[in-house]
Amino acid sequence: MEEPMCEANAYLLKEGKEELILEDISVLRPEKEELYLQNIFGEQKRIKARIREMNLLDHRIVLEEI
Amino acid sequence: MEEPMCEANAYLLKEGKEELILEDISVLRPEKEELYLQNIFGEQKRIKARIREMNLLDHRIVLEEI
Repeated sequence: MEEPMCEANAYLLKEGKEELILEDISVLRPEKEELYLQNIFGEQKRIKARIREMNLLDHRIVLEEI
Repeated sequence: MEEPMCEANAYLLKEGKEELILEDISVLRPEKEELYLQNIFGEQKRIKARIREMNLLDHRIVLEEI
């Protein structure tokens, strides 16, 4: 990586609480009713959720269930 | 900023070409049929678009018109 530490962590908002879903995300792509997430280690996840808010300075992506 | 250079630039895909919409984005938030974008300089934009793909290592957020 040329510039490490620029990834973000994804949290799923559930009943007012945030649950960590995947750390160090490099790629995020909406696919129909799912979100595809991939991190710098090659881990991939698909989750039925949408983006609620992203803050790149805080390295946070907050998702909510559809 | 604690960790500079972690922002991303937003591009709008139009007729197969990418048009730079806003640089150095810190906050992205879907709002109904719009996307709210804010950058590290406090500039704000709302655009009728959705996320097509985000790559944080490449510092790229590609949007497409709704």
